[in-house]
Amino acid sequence: MKLAILFGGASYEHEISIVSAITVKGKLESTFDLSFIFCDQDHSFYLIEPSKMKAITFSRNEHKKMTQLFITNGGFEQRGLFGSKKHDIAILNLIHGGDGEDGTIASMLDFFHIPFIGPRKEASLLSFDKHYTKWFAQSVGVKMLPYEILHKNDPRTINTAYPFIIKPARLGSSIGVSIVREASELDYALDVAFEFDSVVLIEPFIAGVKEYNLAGFGARGEITYSIVEEPQKAEFLDFEKKYLDFSRSGSVEHAAVSDALVTQLRESFAKIYFPLFEGALIRCDFFEIEGEVYLNEINPIPGSMANYLFDNFSGGIQKLLGALPDKKSIRVKYDYIHSISQAKGK
Amino acid sequence: MKLAILFGGASYEHEISIVSAITVKGKLESTFDLSFIFCDQDHSFYLIEPSKMKAITFSRNEHKKMTQLFITNGGFEQRGLFGSKKHDIAILNLIHGGDGEDGTIASMLDFFHIPFIGPRKEASLLSFDKHYTKWFAQSVGVKMLPYEILHKNDPRTINTAYPFIIKPARLGSSIGVSIVREASELDYALDVAFEFDSVVLIEPFIAGVKEYNLAGFGARGEITYSIVEEPQKAEFLDFEKKYLDFSRSGSVEHAAVSDALVTQLRESFAKIYFPLFEGALIRCDFFEIEGEVYLNEINPIPGSMANYLFDNFSGGIQKLLGALPDKKSIRVKYDYIHSISQAKGK
Repeated sequence: MKLAILFGGASYEHEISIVSAITVKGKLESTFDLSFIFCDQDHSFYLIEPSKMKAITFSRNEHKKMTQLFITNGGFEQRGLFGSKKHDIAILNLIHGGDGEDGTIASMLDFFHIPFIGPRKEASLLSFDKHYTKWFAQSVGVKMLPYEILHKNDPRTINTAYPFIIKPARLGSSIGVSIVREASELDYALDVAFEFDSVVLIEPFIAGVKEYNLAGFGARGEITYSIVEEPQKAEFLDFEKKYLDFSRSGSVEHAAVSDALVTQLRESFAKIYFPLFEGALIRCDFFEIEGEVYLNEINPIPGSMANYLFDNFSGGIQKLLGALPDKKSIRVKYDYIHSISQAKGK
Repeated sequence: MKLAILFGGASYEHEISIVSAITVKGKLESTFDLSFIFCDQDHSFYLIEPSKMKAITFSRNEHKKMTQLFITNGGFEQRGLFGSKKHDIAILNLIHGGDGEDGTIASMLDFFHIPFIGPRKEASLLSFDKHYTKWFAQSVGVKMLPYEILHKNDPRTINTAYPFIIKPARLGSSIGVSIVREASELDYALDVAFEFDSVVLIEPFIAGVKEYNLAGFGARGEITYSIVEEPQKAEFLDFEKKYLDFSRSGSVEHAAVSDALVTQLRESFAKIYFPLFEGALIRCDFFEIEGEVYLNEINPIPGSMANYLFDNFSGGIQKLLGALPDKKSIRVKYDYIHSISQAKGK
């Protein structure tokens, strides 16, 4: 089965996308006929030789010597002196952060009729912006923590009690995130967050809260769930720690949780997943507070595709690939133009 | 000043986009050096000769004989036996409905670093889906009518009192919209709406409600407002009526409204516009109910760009074009990859 892994992108998560792609290569290369498409920071695409799928290829700009590809109707095209050759195979979107998770790549792949694994544009936008995720979760009946929003030029008055957590609205991987314990720490934390985004979210910080991660994907109306993981954590994951996290490939212990909690987590996951996230393998990160499940965030393209949470990761990707959602196609009929032309006698 | 009008698209509003483009051509051709890029229903692009900008060119498929263009980094490219030629000029996005207003075209133009007039991807998504518009309006403190949501497979129980209006969540131009006065009309109206979308909105229908349209655009932090129009209407605009509406080019009477109402309308417009809609000329359609302004809908690419509402339409487009928002560019540094490679001694 053929599959092309698309990675890179002009994003703060460019590097971890490379790490993710190398990890997923290791997990899928024995079952898939894989190819690798790198999107550089200038939005040029390159076909990467499998043997060159190493981090230093990109940090040394060696990809620029490889075959350039162009996205076009039906696939990625390789142009040469004697015509062009099209790679019309399905894509696994592994671009984390901007471009990949903000709906840009999804829009382009859909527009060009290229089948792909990954969140569609609406799913991307609603999970990429943490503010929109709050709206969405509420509309499907999934609890989240209370929050407030601050814009860059707003007065810095916060109503949430200390300690609280400040997050740029549109970044993943803990970039720009701070815990603020007292007023003296506020300005610096806001300055850091506003470096990355003009909108930030403020949420109560609950020390020692239980966290559970659950991944899954839907195929033909049914969800295949991963095991439930209780992530190892420092107070929260900083970028360097999380970065190494994207290279995870070993398998993970099922968290010691009650069946009732697993059911609650899966029910919340399902409310989020269908129908918005069809076509994607996502990881939802939850809190448990006084026996209730709260959504923390949706990762629509989780680090290394959360491979380590699945017993049969490559089988799962095959199943998902075989059940990608169709984009409704619209045929134009020109009825109005015909009727107007006739009325005018033309 | 050079500008390319992009129109067509795979959308239920394909035909009205053609009509819009022809109308805008008439309004701008004396001040701009215009070109015309048609996106057909299969998502191929064509450079249309100005003299062929007539509806029948497209209904007769004559565009297929013209120069094909390909979207690529920096612009639309024309390929020939002796190399390629790039049209690296700014775009006016005039694709109504799907593709144009749902964030797809915005994503692609942004990705390929092509400057354009039109809503950016987030603005598109929040205005294209009427359900998301409700969330957004509430977050910026603009009133809208109460509503409920029905999905295709939900039980058909409606809590809104008769009469109410049923709208597909993601279509413009009144397509699939019905007024339902009594229970016997409900099933047919829902069947019609669900033909076009799997999600519908239900809102109270207020006979004889006052409607006011206001268009505008921002440039360097300031909004240029159009006049306020009280649209002529049948009970509501059906598609054929609205279709003809897209060819409007004559100017319109300023509605006989109080200064206080104009101020209210402008204040609501401004709350919606900044910063989400920067780069776009939009038209907001409002209701006035008991002296209060309610947003009905946001048209992020209004029919014929609402040219008929502006005293100096071509001057406005020039002003907007000179103040398009920059997309924040992210430079990748490979610090983490370098530090990891060093730690590994590679």
